[in-house]
Amino acid sequence: MNQSAEDRRNEALAEGSRLAASLFGTLAARTADPPGVTRVAYGEGECAAYALMADAAHAHGAEVAFDAGGNQFITFAGQDRSRTLYVGSHLDSVPHGGNFDGAAGVILGLAAAAVLARLGQTAPFDLCVLCLRAEESCWFPHSYIGSKTALGRLDPAVLDTVVRSDTGETLAWHMRALGFDPEAVRRGARRIDPARAVAYLEPHIEQGPVLVAEGRALGLVTGIRGSFRYRDAAFHGAYAHSGATPRRLRRDAVVAASELVVAMQALWERMEADGHDLAVTFGIVGTDPAQHSFSKVPGEARLCIDVRSRSETTLEEVRQRLVEFGRGIADRRGVRLDLGPLGGSTPAVMAPRLLDQLRGAAVAAGVAPIELASGAGHDAATFANAGIPTGMVFVRNENGSHNPDERMDMADFDQALALVVALLEQPPARWA
Amino acid sequence: MNQSAEDRRNEALAEGSRLAASLFGTLAARTADPPGVTRVAYGEGECAAYALMADAAHAHGAEVAFDAGGNQFITFAGQDRSRTLYVGSHLDSVPHGGNFDGAAGVILGLAAAAVLARLGQTAPFDLCVLCLRAEESCWFPHSYIGSKTALGRLDPAVLDTVVRSDTGETLAWHMRALGFDPEAVRRGARRIDPARAVAYLEPHIEQGPVLVAEGRALGLVTGIRGSFRYRDAAFHGAYAHSGATPRRLRRDAVVAASELVVAMQALWERMEADGHDLAVTFGIVGTDPAQHSFSKVPGEARLCIDVRSRSETTLEEVRQRLVEFGRGIADRRGVRLDLGPLGGSTPAVMAPRLLDQLRGAAVAAGVAPIELASGAGHDAATFANAGIPTGMVFVRNENGSHNPDERMDMADFDQALALVVALLEQPPARWA
Repeated sequence: MNQSAEDRRNEALAEGSRLAASLFGTLAARTADPPGVTRVAYGEGECAAYALMADAAHAHGAEVAFDAGGNQFITFAGQDRSRTLYVGSHLDSVPHGGNFDGAAGVILGLAAAAVLARLGQTAPFDLCVLCLRAEESCWFPHSYIGSKTALGRLDPAVLDTVVRSDTGETLAWHMRALGFDPEAVRRGARRIDPARAVAYLEPHIEQGPVLVAEGRALGLVTGIRGSFRYRDAAFHGAYAHSGATPRRLRRDAVVAASELVVAMQALWERMEADGHDLAVTFGIVGTDPAQHSFSKVPGEARLCIDVRSRSETTLEEVRQRLVEFGRGIADRRGVRLDLGPLGGSTPAVMAPRLLDQLRGAAVAAGVAPIELASGAGHDAATFANAGIPTGMVFVRNENGSHNPDERMDMADFDQALALVVALLEQPPARWA
Repeated sequence: MNQSAEDRRNEALAEGSRLAASLFGTLAARTADPPGVTRVAYGEGECAAYALMADAAHAHGAEVAFDAGGNQFITFAGQDRSRTLYVGSHLDSVPHGGNFDGAAGVILGLAAAAVLARLGQTAPFDLCVLCLRAEESCWFPHSYIGSKTALGRLDPAVLDTVVRSDTGETLAWHMRALGFDPEAVRRGARRIDPARAVAYLEPHIEQGPVLVAEGRALGLVTGIRGSFRYRDAAFHGAYAHSGATPRRLRRDAVVAASELVVAMQALWERMEADGHDLAVTFGIVGTDPAQHSFSKVPGEARLCIDVRSRSETTLEEVRQRLVEFGRGIADRRGVRLDLGPLGGSTPAVMAPRLLDQLRGAAVAAGVAPIELASGAGHDAATFANAGIPTGMVFVRNENGSHNPDERMDMADFDQALALVVALLEQPPARWA
């Protein structure tokens, strides 16, 4: 690249960055709910975010359309108009969340389209910046509603059985309230045809601490962990006087629960050493405030178990070991383990070729991402499991997500922008 | 004993048992608060119980008096009137508690006095059936208020700083409200002079399951466990995304707490095998409902630690090991252990000679008690630690105490009555 071409490119990227910064600023102001922002799925803040992105799209000459479920499609015409390349993420947030979780992916798509236009280039295929709804399961307790709707993969029962946490109204009710068409969703109508989708790329802030710990701005995601969960497990023993009940006559639920936590921790260490991808978390534990006392052997201990892995085989192996450990502890301690309902999600593999294109784009853009698995779930999993080549780019973020303190530096965002622009500059042949 | 003497004795014991059964029945009716009974310390149910015992005392020719703090002294004249033999317990209960915890000791004292009278006998010394107040720390969070008051050993600060859980009024306020004299209590006035006290015997239902498990009606108590307690301990780590935070970057408070529970359980097993008397209980554990989530590494775990032993040395050794374990776990897991305020009570030794007299009385009465430590605290600890020869008799009880399901069979109570009567028949020389 000669000097003037590099200058032009840098100027275009800087302009894209300014557009993004402006969109982040306006979005934060319009959805402010101190501390942080609130963008309710199918509600106020999410709709404000949709309107802001639509305005920006119109200003840059894109077409804006909705699907039956209310996802927003912002399309920039490409070289080959018969197929579509999707870049995007979700625009809802948790209550009092941060400004970047979700929105960064959409804004990066818009900024990248603006940079390409400024450089006088056209994406190899139609470039659709996708604004997905209802990704945060705090509003509707169901995973990936927006992406499932866009792909015609939402279980119709969800429309009528899953209700929003703040209103108690069903998903179908909320779709209708915004003028969308839940009956079409029910029939499996879809705006995205996997056969015509070249790829789905979801840029997202990292929700974990790996990039901060590694001192790197970007990460290329190799896979999205699936999970199994027992959200309402409990050991049941017997309450008894703490001073007057000998060890051999106790049925102590807290000791049982502690042994399970320690055994699962040791299992995690062993399996990780053997090369398994795994995360084991007991995020909620507790005795019953209505019955516990400092002077009672605890007769009940609640547990919430969340296990994640990129491998379904690993998940099932760990689940079987968990059941075995629980049975052994229950027998030895005279307690009963009730695991309760099993939930979870399927791991998703990121497309090897797209990952390779991203590596190439990184070299071209002069950025040096690491590669890592996504432990958090993302709409990208729906796309991957629908057979669409899918990738994710993580941007370094401090203090985790789902809180007002999440922090992404625009300098890191700019590296992601350069990477995505370089990807979109790859010729149609690289995508075939 | 010739046939007619044995008949007379059995008839007297049966009459004592009927008196006791009648008192238990009336007491349950007058203090009923379904499910169970409620006798608030310095409140309604406790006062009703005092009145009932005073009526029974008057009917059997005893003198009734109160001390400055409101404990009730029911005195039957003995052979040697210069010294006093105390039998009794407390008359308050927990909310919706059982009918026997505390009351059984007072009623047994009254029944024994009635049996002696019926047999035409007089106790070797004045026999004082003692009705103590405020033993259940659910009302005033301070141990042994009644016995400490009777012995002039109540810390004066307690009068003004400890408030009743239901009213928020101080102990002094409640004493005054019933017409007693908290200022005299403050000065250390005492109705019981240890130098003139021959012994204190506290019959009580067993609050643990040992007698049920052993299939024995009675237990002679060898000592009362003391304790140390950290009621508000907590591990502090860091909240983080459960899927996105690798093991080495976690500061998981639940894993830390579980390791401490398991380590303390193992320590208990080892020390018990080495002959130490010990009980270790984590009765309350929990993550913070305001912050925890199934998808967050838990950043905080609360713990309540209760450790009991008959040996102060054992208690201190265990406390030091607990601190060491906590420090090791904190270092290894990147968390912080805040143990919070230390509380507890001093172990009490039961008088060897009185224990020996009780063994003799058991043979005379034809009952076969086992010997065991009391893991629960009792007013007897105050008497023992004031230098008064002290003993306790446990009566078998199902389902523990502090609940409406506690269950003592009158057949077991009758064995305790026979034992105590036989003890009171021992001549003055045995008590010297």
